[in-house]
Order: sequence, then C-alpha cells, then structure tokens
Amino acid sequence: MANIKDVALRAGVSVTTVSRVLNNRGYIGKETRKKVEDAMAAMNFSPNQIARALQKSQSYILGMIVPDSNHPFFSELIKHVEVYANEQNYKVLICNSLDQSDKEAKYINMLTENRVDGIIMCSHTLDVEAYKNVNFPIVTFDRIISNQFPYVASDNYRGGELATEHLIQSGCKHLLHISGPLKLDLLANRRADAFKLTCMRHNLPHQVIEGSHDNLTFDYFKDFIMNEVADNLSNFDGVFCSNDIVAYALYLYATEIGIKIPEDLKIVGYDYHSFTRMLQTPKLTTIAQPTNRLGKVLSSTIINMIENKDKDTVNNTIVDVELIKGQTT
Amino acid sequence: MANIKDVALRAGVSVTTVSRVLNNRGYIGKETRKKVEDAMAAMNFSPNQIARALQKSQSYILGMIVPDSNHPFFSELIKHVEVYANEQNYKVLICNSLDQSDKEAKYINMLTENRVDGIIMCSHTLDVEAYKNVNFPIVTFDRIISNQFPYVASDNYRGGELATEHLIQSGCKHLLHISGPLKLDLLANRRADAFKLTCMRHNLPHQVIEGSHDNLTFDYFKDFIMNEVADNLSNFDGVFCSNDIVAYALYLYATEIGIKIPEDLKIVGYDYHSFTRMLQTPKLTTIAQPTNRLGKVLSSTIINMIENKDKDTVNNTIVDVELIKGQTT
Repeated sequence: MANIKDVALRAGVSVTTVSRVLNNRGYIGKETRKKVEDAMAAMNFSPNQIARALQKSQSYILGMIVPDSNHPFFSELIKHVEVYANEQNYKVLICNSLDQSDKEAKYINMLTENRVDGIIMCSHTLDVEAYKNVNFPIVTFDRIISNQFPYVASDNYRGGELATEHLIQSGCKHLLHISGPLKLDLLANRRADAFKLTCMRHNLPHQVIEGSHDNLTFDYFKDFIMNEVADNLSNFDGVFCSNDIVAYALYLYATEIGIKIPEDLKIVGYDYHSFTRMLQTPKLTTIAQPTNRLGKVLSSTIINMIENKDKDTVNNTIVDVELIKGQTT
Repeated sequence: MANIKDVALRAGVSVTTVSRVLNNRGYIGKETRKKVEDAMAAMNFSPNQIARALQKSQSYILGMIVPDSNHPFFSELIKHVEVYANEQNYKVLICNSLDQSDKEAKYINMLTENRVDGIIMCSHTLDVEAYKNVNFPIVTFDRIISNQFPYVASDNYRGGELATEHLIQSGCKHLLHISGPLKLDLLANRRADAFKLTCMRHNLPHQVIEGSHDNLTFDYFKDFIMNEVADNLSNFDGVFCSNDIVAYALYLYATEIGIKIPEDLKIVGYDYHSFTRMLQTPKLTTIAQPTNRLGKVLSSTIINMIENKDKDTVNNTIVDVELIKGQTT
C-alpha cells in the first residue's frame, strides 16, 4: 500500500511538501498542490491513509503533567518551559494530575490520543510499569522511570549537603530533616540521603520526619507541623525542610510558641520559588532550584528527542543548586 | 463539490461517524468504516477536502493567553480553567504574552493555525481592532473587545466600592487609590471609578496614582512605591491598592519607615490569590476574586460557544467579590 513517501516520490516533491498539502499548512503553490493530489489519486492513497498520515505529522504540542499548576514551584517551571518551547515553535498543554494516579493515567491516554509530540512528566504517582507501553518521547522531572526515559533534576544530593553543612557551620548540634515522601523512588529523596550522610560524617545526632505528597498547600503543612513535628521540636536546633512552604509553616509555628529564629532554632528550606522570593518576613534561608534552567532543559530535551537529534542516547541532566542565605539561619 | 454532510448522507451514517472515521477516533465498526470510505471514493471526496474536514473537526483544545502564567492570580485561574475543562474533555494550551502586543498577536495566529477550538484571552495589550478578523470563539477576561465577544469578570465596581467603604467605615479621612493602568479600557478600571465615586459621596479628599501593567512582580511594585508613592504617603490614612502584591510592598515600605499599620495607615488589597492566602505576616485585608468560579465560567462560556449551545447570544458574566478582613485595617 502506498505511503506518504511513495506519494512524495511520485509527485517529485519532498515528504515535507506532501505533509504540508495534507495539513494545509505553510505556503504551497497551486501547481505543487495539484501534483501531490494527482499522485495521491493515482496511487489510491485512501482517505484512511490520509487521516493516518495527518495523525502522524507533528502537532508541535508538548503535554506537561504537573501535580498542581498553581503550586509556586510548578507554576514557575511551566512558565519557563512554555517560554522556551514557544521560541522553538512548540506549544504546551497543561495537565493537573492533582497527584492522583488515575488522573495521571487518564492524562497520558488523552495526550497519546491527541497526538502530542512528547510529554514532560512532573507528576509521580504512577507505577513505573504504567509507562512501559508509551511509544513516544517522555522526559521526567525528578524521577527515574527507566533507562529509556531521560530525566531532568536539580542536584538534590548537593542541595541536601549544602543545607546540612550550612546548619552545622552555623553551630547546630541536633538536626532534623522534614522530608518529602520516601516511598516512591524520587530523585528529591537524595536530599534526605545527603542530610543523613552529612550528619553521620560530623557525628551529629539527627532524625528524619517523613512528609507526604498528597497535598502541597500551606494549610496542609501547618497541620503537619502541629501533628507530626511540634512535640519533638525542642529536641532540635536546626531543621532542613524539603520545601519552602513547610519551612515557612515551621517558622510561623516556632515564633508563635516563643522559639527565637535563628538564635534558638535555624531553618533551611528548599526551592526559592516566586513565593519565597516575594516573602520578606522572614527572608528564608533556602536552597535555590534554578527553575529557569530546569524549564529550558526539560523543553530542549523533549524537543531534541522529538526531532530525533539525540538518536539512541538518553541525555539525563542534573542542574546546579545554590544556597541562598536569609534570616532563618 | 461534496462535503462531509453529503458523505454522511450517502453512507447512511451521522456526520459524527464520518468525522470519527476521518479522525480515527472513537470506536468505529469495520463495516461502518468501509461504508464511509466507499462513499468518499464514490463522491470523489478529495484528499484536500479530507484534510480540510479534518481541520474543521474539533481539536478539543482551548488556547489560554495570559500575561504571565507564574503570577499567582493567573496561575490559580489557569488551574481552575484546566481542571474544569478537563472534566468536559477539553485540553488547555498555555501562552505567556508577557504583556507584549507582538507576542499576543503571534499567539493568536499560532492558535488559529493550530486549530484550537477557542481562545480564553486574559492578556490585554492588543488593540480591539486586532480581534476583528478572528473567526472562532473568544472569551475575554476583564475586557470588553466588542459586542461579539463575551467577557467574564469579577464585579470590579463592587470590589472598589467594598474596599473604599471599608476604609471609610474604619475611620479613614484621606484616601489614596493605587490603580492599574487606566489607558486601556479594562473592566478592572471600574475599581478606580468606584473608589472616586465612593469618596465623592462621602465628601472625602482622595487621589489616584496610576500604576503600570508592564510588570506585575514584587520588585517592580517595591520600586513603584519608592518612586511614585513614598513622597506623598504621609498625606493619607487609607490606601486601596489594585492588587495584593502592591499592597504587600506598600505595607513593607510603610512599616520600614515607622508608619504603624493599621493604626496610622490602613491598607486594602485586591485578589486574595494563593500568595495572599499563604502570607501570614501580615494577613492582608483584601477583596477576594473567586478564581475558582472565574475559571469555571471562562471554561464553560467558551465550551458553550464552541458547541454552539448559546447560538446568537453573547453571555457576559460578572462574578461576585467579597471583602476579607485581615490585619491591615
């Protein structure tokens, strides 16, 4: 059966030109258009094949699945992905998984049916197995799915190390880490690994309290601090928090019960997103994830995969982080 | 020349079924598919027509153009639009105009070429003329383009009135409003109108200082307060700010130079987006725009237009606002 290449050959034009005629996109001269249509007719290129060829042609649409597009970290990441993708003539479809695995699975199906060219996956509730049948480019943020799919992450281990070393250099002797959920194999867990190893290297007592991912809101973290951290807080003089919102909630709770920050308790957060940058009381000490660079690398990685520029290589990228010294240490 | 309806008639199936065959979407039995393909062949339904029919078929994609998807108000609006649209099986393409009219125009072209079903326009730099040639559904947020295009807005006049009345009830005698840009005919300007009329009704001296839209960041508003407001601030005991970020910047500046809030100066903001809700020092007194409801109405309005449910009627929607009492009044 004839395919789009056969049509191009017969019409004496490029595959791109045939694709343009099919898609009604870009400038095509009348004569060229006729040549292509005649070739199709002569070769019995069927309506169905045309539909399929149209489907095969690039949509220049990237799907981006995030837990919550209104969370300040993801909202910033989305912006940088979109601005960079737009420069390369790609558009970005946003999907809020709300961290529900059924929504995540539904979005992957929907994006597949809707012929996106690739997916940037920043939501992490699905089992790795669920990705095995996906037959188009995916790049993940902060998670290793398999050797086939490249990932982009900030240097979580280095971030955890910087935060912990900074607390120790500032005189802390009893350290606590409030982590994210440790069940899934997320690269963000390297922050907790670095915390533990750095404390051990300095022979300092330390503890990890595991947070959840179900909800990333301020209200959730406020309750979390009350229920899971408050009782033991007096045992510690330094806390490394896995994100800035929990760090802010901890700061508010501690000052409310009369703990002086940073004299009695030092706090380091993680992210340095737009909320943290706007917040002036206090200016949080935190580890900055460069969302600008992360967004650019996520975009360029998926676009390179789509355009086949990186054939047969899987390019993972780890982006540098830095410590921002604020008023909480 | 045969069109998709003729094909449907000849094949004895519905237009939807023909469209499904063309799009390879949904379940189609083998026999039905053959009937449709035979009808196309018999009627000389040309490849080009098929391409056009495919183009005409719905993409179930909405374009949403915002000034900055990372601004807390728009990031929240995007989330609500997306979550609601997704329930109706629509996807949302995000476009950051960065408030540049050339980018806004480029996005409209791009979205047209890419067969989105409709556009939700929340960026407002283009002249009204630029929309005249758009031949598919558009709904605007906070701006009247023409009688053809419905708009969705919160009740800006009522918001301005609530804010100003609240300042007056709290004892303010000299009132200032820091507005948005008043050059474009944005519905948000009704806040300034309400401010002026409410002050006049109470015979109170008042002033409006006009802000800009070029930049909505905290740093911009911090500089704006220093350069445009600081010198005259001592003349006022109540300020109604057109958004919460400028209200926060004003609060910080005022407390820094020793003005007591709310004793010496009362401040009311506008928006009550995620940043304001997270901010605990101070809890801002502000006018809450219900982004949840705005997002839902923007989605449902554009979807109704696309699906032709509201033929020949233009449904504008004004959504209620409310005063949230915080610590700055």
